Amino acid sequence: GYSQLPRHVHGLAGAPEWPAIKAMLPDLAGRRVVDLGCGFGWASRWMRENGAASVLGLDLSRNMIDRAIADTHDEAISYRIADLETLELPPAAFDLVYSALTFHYVQDFARLARMIGDALVPGGELVFTIEHPIFMAAARPGWMQDHDGRKTWPVNGYSVEGERRTDWFASGVLKYHRTIATTVNTLIEAGFRLRRIGEFAPTQEQIFQNGGLAEELERPMMLLVAAVKD
Amino acid sequence: GYSQLPRHVHGLAGAPEWPAIKAMLPDLAGRRVVDLGCGFGWASRWMRENGAASVLGLDLSRNMIDRAIADTHDEAISYRIADLETLELPPAAFDLVYSALTFHYVQDFARLARMIGDALVPGGELVFTIEHPIFMAAARPGWMQDHDGRKTWPVNGYSVEGERRTDWFASGVLKYHRTIATTVNTLIEAGFRLRRIGEFAPTQEQIFQNGGLAEELERPMMLLVAAVKD
Repeated sequence: GYSQLPRHVHGLAGAPEWPAIKAMLPDLAGRRVVDLGCGFGWASRWMRENGAASVLGLDLSRNMIDRAIADTHDEAISYRIADLETLELPPAAFDLVYSALTFHYVQDFARLARMIGDALVPGGELVFTIEHPIFMAAARPGWMQDHDGRKTWPVNGYSVEGERRTDWFASGVLKYHRTIATTVNTLIEAGFRLRRIGEFAPTQEQIFQNGGLAEELERPMMLLVAAVKD
Repeated sequence: GYSQLPRHVHGLAGAPEWPAIKAMLPDLAGRRVVDLGCGFGWASRWMRENGAASVLGLDLSRNMIDRAIADTHDEAISYRIADLETLELPPAAFDLVYSALTFHYVQDFARLARMIGDALVPGGELVFTIEHPIFMAAARPGWMQDHDGRKTWPVNGYSVEGERRTDWFASGVLKYHRTIATTVNTLIEAGFRLRRIGEFAPTQEQIFQNGGLAEELERPMMLLVAAVKD
């Protein structure tokens, strides 16, 4: 099941996009960090090991929070169950909000972006990843072949935002498709300045180690965003 | 041929994305404008009719510049043949740089972005459209059907940037594919702040007037970008 995914078994080392995320993170020294969708707490612990002053890890799943707590021995990391649709954080209380592969489960991204903006100090940073809108858009997201037999990713319904249901470990997992434009413009309207975006692609070294990653050159699977609260 | 396209016969009214572009333009009153890839000069003339102080229209095509000059009767608009790969503009001499569907023919976008940044006054704006990287990426860009028979746009080779050749009016037209991340990050590195992006999608009214546009809901065909020189 889900907890057997490489990224859950091996932590950050099991996530091929982690080096690209790391390169987008600001210096962590002394930062007060929130980890939205912290799962088992891998990133929360990494942030502390790399200089963060404190980390608040939040996740909707009681199972994940229980295991994060059990696996963490650090007074400066706390974990809580929270629903990002309604979460409120104290104003100007954090220097970095981090989130990995979680925001595409949130229906009201505009509310969340404003709330995060309020929770950050001026100059504070938001670094997050989501499933790429191109990866999520299609009614039947799965590899096809083009007329030459080349591995090809299908795109349809791209401009039609809203619910996407996929059978991924559990049936009928509900995600929310938003265009790249909506994601970026929502951040700008919430007072963020875009610092950098990324679209995960494996390096040649990664493909050498794990040939299965080569197909991620064909399609953008994840969108990485770093933004600064003005 | 190319000059019979609706956007060339009917000007801006023949370009379904024009309302979306217009909504992204700053107030034009008194602005000194450059139109990169001005074609027959439709946008150059529109800018002047809507308050611009002056417009410099540049295009690689002598035929287009000749017709732009013949169709324009306005001392404040000038046209010149220019190659965007090597173009130099005077520093801090313009308030707005506009470009429609041209930058994807330019190989060295980083050089062009820096040159545009230098040509703009601080607070000056760059508004441009390109073919969307998702539209351009595939080796064989053309509609397919998914397993349910739904109209589907193919994506492959997305992370492999560089030349794309298509047979569009002329055979072997050469375009340069860059990811969205590269396009956005290149602008940020050239000193721009992203103000808004758009991914053209037809309105219901446009689809009512022209049913053929409905398919543009399936795929992002154009990327629209508005950025401010800091």
